[in-house]
Amino acid sequence: MRYSKIFAKTNKSAPHDADSPNARLLAQAGFINQSMSGVYSYLPLGLRVLNKIKQIVREEMDALGANEILMPALHSKNLYDTTERWDSIDVLFKLKGSGKKEYALGSTHEEVVTPLVKEYVKSYKDLPVAVYQIQDKFRDEPRAKSGLLRGREFSMKDLYSFHLTEEDFNKFYEKSKESYLNVFSRCGLDAVVVEASGGVFSKFSHEFQVKTEYGEDTIFNCKCGFAQNKEIAEVKEDDDCPKCGTGKIQTSKSIEVGNIFPLKNRFTKAFGFKVQGQDGKQTDILMGCYGIGPSRVMGSVVEVHHDDKGIVWPKAIAPFNVHLISIKNKDEAIQEKIMGICQSLHDELNQLGVDVLWDDRENISAGQKFADADLIGNPLRIVVSEKTLADNSVEWKERHESESKLVSTENAVNKIKMFIDAPDNLTSH
Amino acid sequence: MRYSKIFAKTNKSAPHDADSPNARLLAQAGFINQSMSGVYSYLPLGLRVLNKIKQIVREEMDALGANEILMPALHSKNLYDTTERWDSIDVLFKLKGSGKKEYALGSTHEEVVTPLVKEYVKSYKDLPVAVYQIQDKFRDEPRAKSGLLRGREFSMKDLYSFHLTEEDFNKFYEKSKESYLNVFSRCGLDAVVVEASGGVFSKFSHEFQVKTEYGEDTIFNCKCGFAQNKEIAEVKEDDDCPKCGTGKIQTSKSIEVGNIFPLKNRFTKAFGFKVQGQDGKQTDILMGCYGIGPSRVMGSVVEVHHDDKGIVWPKAIAPFNVHLISIKNKDEAIQEKIMGICQSLHDELNQLGVDVLWDDRENISAGQKFADADLIGNPLRIVVSEKTLADNSVEWKERHESESKLVSTENAVNKIKMFIDAPDNLTSH
Repeated sequence: MRYSKIFAKTNKSAPHDADSPNARLLAQAGFINQSMSGVYSYLPLGLRVLNKIKQIVREEMDALGANEILMPALHSKNLYDTTERWDSIDVLFKLKGSGKKEYALGSTHEEVVTPLVKEYVKSYKDLPVAVYQIQDKFRDEPRAKSGLLRGREFSMKDLYSFHLTEEDFNKFYEKSKESYLNVFSRCGLDAVVVEASGGVFSKFSHEFQVKTEYGEDTIFNCKCGFAQNKEIAEVKEDDDCPKCGTGKIQTSKSIEVGNIFPLKNRFTKAFGFKVQGQDGKQTDILMGCYGIGPSRVMGSVVEVHHDDKGIVWPKAIAPFNVHLISIKNKDEAIQEKIMGICQSLHDELNQLGVDVLWDDRENISAGQKFADADLIGNPLRIVVSEKTLADNSVEWKERHESESKLVSTENAVNKIKMFIDAPDNLTSH
Repeated sequence: MRYSKIFAKTNKSAPHDADSPNARLLAQAGFINQSMSGVYSYLPLGLRVLNKIKQIVREEMDALGANEILMPALHSKNLYDTTERWDSIDVLFKLKGSGKKEYALGSTHEEVVTPLVKEYVKSYKDLPVAVYQIQDKFRDEPRAKSGLLRGREFSMKDLYSFHLTEEDFNKFYEKSKESYLNVFSRCGLDAVVVEASGGVFSKFSHEFQVKTEYGEDTIFNCKCGFAQNKEIAEVKEDDDCPKCGTGKIQTSKSIEVGNIFPLKNRFTKAFGFKVQGQDGKQTDILMGCYGIGPSRVMGSVVEVHHDDKGIVWPKAIAPFNVHLISIKNKDEAIQEKIMGICQSLHDELNQLGVDVLWDDRENISAGQKFADADLIGNPLRIVVSEKTLADNSVEWKERHESESKLVSTENAVNKIKMFIDAPDNLTSH
């Protein structure tokens, strides 16, 4: 795609309240635009990243055997009367419509999914059921902050599972941990499974935390894998690890990118969702909920993967695989050759499934184009100029490397394809 | 995909207020579930259809040169203060958040898109701009009705274009009509371009109407293509057509599936969105808005394409291309053969990009499976049974035909692929 045709280019300004790298860099690189505090528009480049993250989440949820559905954001008050949560969810946006009808905006969907699944599950034979949706959620955060990390409207994948037995629930719950770790690892995040508050029903829920200095959570953790959220921690810094016995407990700042929660029969009981078991007795159904915020993942990736020049996207979720730059030449014949080579690279790579963002702008200096490429952060920059033409080459620079090299024009397409297909080699900043 | 693994099967019940074929059939076939009046969940089969429609819309918008973005549903009141529409949009859902902050839920996005585009358009050289989003909209309809046709929360593609000159605007506006007709025709709808009220600025806007007895609109139209909405009609039934002069004006009931609207400088002026033109003078920017409701398209297709047995989906938006049925046999060896053939068909067709819904349920009668296939409405039903095995064949029945035939198992995959790739041959009910 030609950058000249894309709405919303890079710009120097960021929101005055940009209090974190993701808020500043995503705005400057033209990925998001703040509509008001905690509420953003996704611009073309940002929407591409968001959609790639959603697709990874979708693939892992499908592999887990869950069915994708789409529930409404508008919830009737009577659903919350049933679960007695109308007044207890403090971030719930509430509104009145015509005829004095009262609604909430979905901040989570237990109140909608439980009666929905109940309608279709007639017998124990219909269990287990696992359904998920990828949808925008609304939360009346008193203090929205940190760009995409804590917003009032944000993207969420929420999965709900329903089971006949504790054993079946536990099996699914453990399997979901693996799916979650797959999602984060494919998105370039090194997430840790952390024990967190389980509410009134379970000892623990589990959070997926990514360590970074801008995180608003604090976790106590050991190299062996043990980790607890500070809020419930039974350990403190420098304690001996209660799991491995040999490691020392460390403190880390981190961002929560996902959480999973055993709900037992908290919601199924409220909605009278029971089935007749194999033994003929009515049995309470056990439920779990499992959340990942794709927009929060997007913000977290920028927190972890950036440098002083801009974003360094992991390959799997970069807006484009390749950032192609044509350097304008005054000589018409040379200019034509440069544009011809770029067009061929663009078209041949597209045919191989490699996305190319071609900065074809004619009135922008080479220096500005390089700065924009670094800010936007696609994994590979390819430059075609009079100089590279003379060498029958293109200039190759990986975003996380500082050195460039020349690659023969003839071999460029194959080498690029191989590079894009190879695993990432990024480290956190 | 195996039907046994899909959440939400067909069921006999429909919402008590199901007042139209789409409300009844989509609920019974397991495509949607009513959460409350005018608010629905999309079940796995329904979400597939909705996503196919959205993808067709996306392709046509991209071909028009528009950029996809995603704007928030939560709008700040001050945007509506700027355009003086806070009190004039009668279907606007309004809410108060913490700190007494007032919001509206997006029923349309002029208030968000205009200041957004203004931020990135610095000069006349940046024009024209066309951006669109596919997002859920909220409207406080006093009387939600007709299933997906008039809801309180529904899917919308809204496109906005910005132009320096009237000429450029007109060119784009006419081009958008073609894109819209492409969308509807690809979705199996025969839409008519209808002149409608232009508001205070233009003589006309244009609606895209599909004729059907359940429509809530009335249009006056002639065979030559002339059509006006009753609300603004300058003609009446049996008048001579003012366009062709020879035809007679007819009355038709219809459903509005899209509309396009010249907004002149109504919103750009309110937000002070001007640019310096080539002549150095500050110029008002002209704007258009263009809407299609993918969920309303889905409902409209069912209104037009169904029979007394169920839905008859056009190929392009059917949840699956093929409905494969295995008929359970008591003889273990025969049953194994039947399941083996079904598995091969399923896998080979999937590899060719043909979606297969395989009704593999073992405890469901053949008659019930046939009834479900008709209700769900995929374009082609293939049955494998002891009887077809004996003929080295499968049974082939197109959804809109009443007769079935046998096709040799060997040729089935190729014939199915050819059938799915061929154009539809549906007529409205």
